[in-house]
Amino acid sequence: MEAEIITIGDELLIGQTIDTNSAYFGQQLGSIGISISRRTAVSDKELAILSALSEAFSRVNLVIMTGGLGPTKDDITKKTLCQYYQCGYRRDVAVLSHLESLFASRGRLILETNKVQADVPESCETLHNAVGTAPGMWFDHQEKVLISLPGVPGEVYHLTEERVIPRLKSKFPLPTVEHRTLITLQKAESLLSRQLETFEASLPPHLSLAYLPSFNMVKLRLSQVSNSGETNGDIDEYFSKLQTAIPEDVFCLGDIDPALYLSNYLIKNNIRFTTAESCTGGWVAHRLMQAPGISAVYPGSLVAYANDVKQGELGVDPTVIEAHGAVSEPCALAMAKGALKKFQVDLAIATTGIAGPGGGTKEKPVGLVYIAVATNDEHFCKPFRLFGNREQIIQRSSNAALWMVKQLLKLPSDTAL
Amino acid sequence: MEAEIITIGDELLIGQTIDTNSAYFGQQLGSIGISISRRTAVSDKELAILSALSEAFSRVNLVIMTGGLGPTKDDITKKTLCQYYQCGYRRDVAVLSHLESLFASRGRLILETNKVQADVPESCETLHNAVGTAPGMWFDHQEKVLISLPGVPGEVYHLTEERVIPRLKSKFPLPTVEHRTLITLQKAESLLSRQLETFEASLPPHLSLAYLPSFNMVKLRLSQVSNSGETNGDIDEYFSKLQTAIPEDVFCLGDIDPALYLSNYLIKNNIRFTTAESCTGGWVAHRLMQAPGISAVYPGSLVAYANDVKQGELGVDPTVIEAHGAVSEPCALAMAKGALKKFQVDLAIATTGIAGPGGGTKEKPVGLVYIAVATNDEHFCKPFRLFGNREQIIQRSSNAALWMVKQLLKLPSDTAL
Repeated sequence: MEAEIITIGDELLIGQTIDTNSAYFGQQLGSIGISISRRTAVSDKELAILSALSEAFSRVNLVIMTGGLGPTKDDITKKTLCQYYQCGYRRDVAVLSHLESLFASRGRLILETNKVQADVPESCETLHNAVGTAPGMWFDHQEKVLISLPGVPGEVYHLTEERVIPRLKSKFPLPTVEHRTLITLQKAESLLSRQLETFEASLPPHLSLAYLPSFNMVKLRLSQVSNSGETNGDIDEYFSKLQTAIPEDVFCLGDIDPALYLSNYLIKNNIRFTTAESCTGGWVAHRLMQAPGISAVYPGSLVAYANDVKQGELGVDPTVIEAHGAVSEPCALAMAKGALKKFQVDLAIATTGIAGPGGGTKEKPVGLVYIAVATNDEHFCKPFRLFGNREQIIQRSSNAALWMVKQLLKLPSDTAL
Repeated sequence: MEAEIITIGDELLIGQTIDTNSAYFGQQLGSIGISISRRTAVSDKELAILSALSEAFSRVNLVIMTGGLGPTKDDITKKTLCQYYQCGYRRDVAVLSHLESLFASRGRLILETNKVQADVPESCETLHNAVGTAPGMWFDHQEKVLISLPGVPGEVYHLTEERVIPRLKSKFPLPTVEHRTLITLQKAESLLSRQLETFEASLPPHLSLAYLPSFNMVKLRLSQVSNSGETNGDIDEYFSKLQTAIPEDVFCLGDIDPALYLSNYLIKNNIRFTTAESCTGGWVAHRLMQAPGISAVYPGSLVAYANDVKQGELGVDPTVIEAHGAVSEPCALAMAKGALKKFQVDLAIATTGIAGPGGGTKEKPVGLVYIAVATNDEHFCKPFRLFGNREQIIQRSSNAALWMVKQLLKLPSDTAL
């Protein structure tokens, strides 16, 4: 089944806002077997919206529309949809009562101008928006379904997951789509794909494997599509085979940020950690501290940019820096050990390298990053040669740091978290 | 003048990639007086591309197309364009010699499969892509111009700025558009707009003011459009008036990240700084250390999440935390003073607050953040009530921190940097 997306808003066209909703719809609808065949961004003009809408319905039976319901341009979408469906407005009782209780809870008086948000085209059913004031609208006319949603990402996520997806599933006979995802770090997509040649060749037609690469991380997503409603039930069998085919490369199972996976592991096992970062400037700590509850195992951390901070705060021996430079294995190891002691933790991660754009030499080029990990019993360090601009090198370094921790702690990949 | 954008690629439709090129085109073309009236994303299919293209040319005379030139799906765009323009391929000598020197510089042999990138539709002129292998293509047929570019953002930026914009300017009689931008922090868009009512009413028709808000920051962009080629030359006069109308609110002039503005100021004036961050977890430091050359004034910084790190590393008196809690003015001030001493710098910024989602109470709700700034002579602290999710509160806190530094250092807004 195919659908189209229409996004409404001058702010998208003039480039003031980057459209993240569309990628979200692609993922969400894809997960229930609906593929987006086209998306169109138009301005807040009636004619532009009307023509985009008729064109879309000439190609597909499902259109999702976002935007044009905001406070400043209020009802351009509603007005246009009244025209498209040749109907008037009705005041929706459920929306009105939601608005009234929302205003009451904020101690504000509801005015007639606010109540207008409860006026919707007669031919739609409303979708309750628990996190905002503008409802979603569902039009079902001659077997063609239009769903109109506000453009605010938080409201889009809520309405899509709570209202739209369940309703689409019951309205249309959709294929059952199931996914199994795992995360690999540090191995290039091309090398993984070579290693997985036999596995991929063995896949039955209802299973497919997708590679989703970013910054030295590759997400591998195994998908199963069953059209008739029955599932073949062998996706888990093949997912095990996938893991067996690349035993050294699986960082963790599930569609999860690997930093969050690691944070949760550290919290669950009560492993207190810190970082001492030079070239990554706190980015490794920043990624690891996103998990709720992290404060139980994360006392704080240090960015040690200058050599005297490496020496004064982390106790790196000045002769180490003199002999090997700050971008070196001995320095990275000394930083990790110093941080371990300073913050009295169980695990320390240290980074020192050249993120660029300046500072590279022939011996130590931009992209050379030493990462050290240490516990009270063990420590090791590895050099990485990373590419990209400054931001990308920092992001790749942080993924390399996660990988290093996995090597040191011999993390299982399949911990249920 | 109006243009349309067509982006080609399944990875956009399935939501694997977020389309950032389109917003970039909106900004770039807008800056030379071309507005994007529609953009369409289609899959890597010939028929989808052909129909999107004819539809676009039925509405406008300029279409920019990206993608479909990658290595895996190689020439779907080129093949489709040969069909659209009913022509064959030619081998472009300039592109071939660029490819040859590129391969030679990497010490790699150029194969026939590589040379295919120099084969382009006969009816186009190529646009030299100095940063990649696929050239841009310019088709000019019956006064309708199509520009086809690769989808890689870095190549899009290069080709747009170096090749496309200059060529569009000489091809079409475009209005002259000039912008003057300033950045405000900490004041809501609605309050600014009320304060600027008289100013906005005084604007002549060729000048317009745009509000571009994000996370407690509002960019104000004054634009001047001159159709006949002559400029009225009064944009600078009105830009001064704009600054005078909101004298307290201008953080800096220019379309620049305010953190970068501040970093450059600190570098230029040799003001060494550090941060001691609790709830912002290193984000303030991370934003400030993006400027090239920052290491001259930034020795490093501390994330002090746990109270014992605030005490042990920053010398916060335990009785302060007992009496007022870690989220308090006295604690924030003690952290700033402690960091000033620890890192032996001229300026310290400290944050302590509740970024959520958990940890809020009635007295100290999620979004309450104390920010303190200190030099050796002065210090002050302010509480901020910020809203949004965790990430947004952290981003808003970092903007509030920049604003605090401006208050303390009495930063000029008009330093030429």
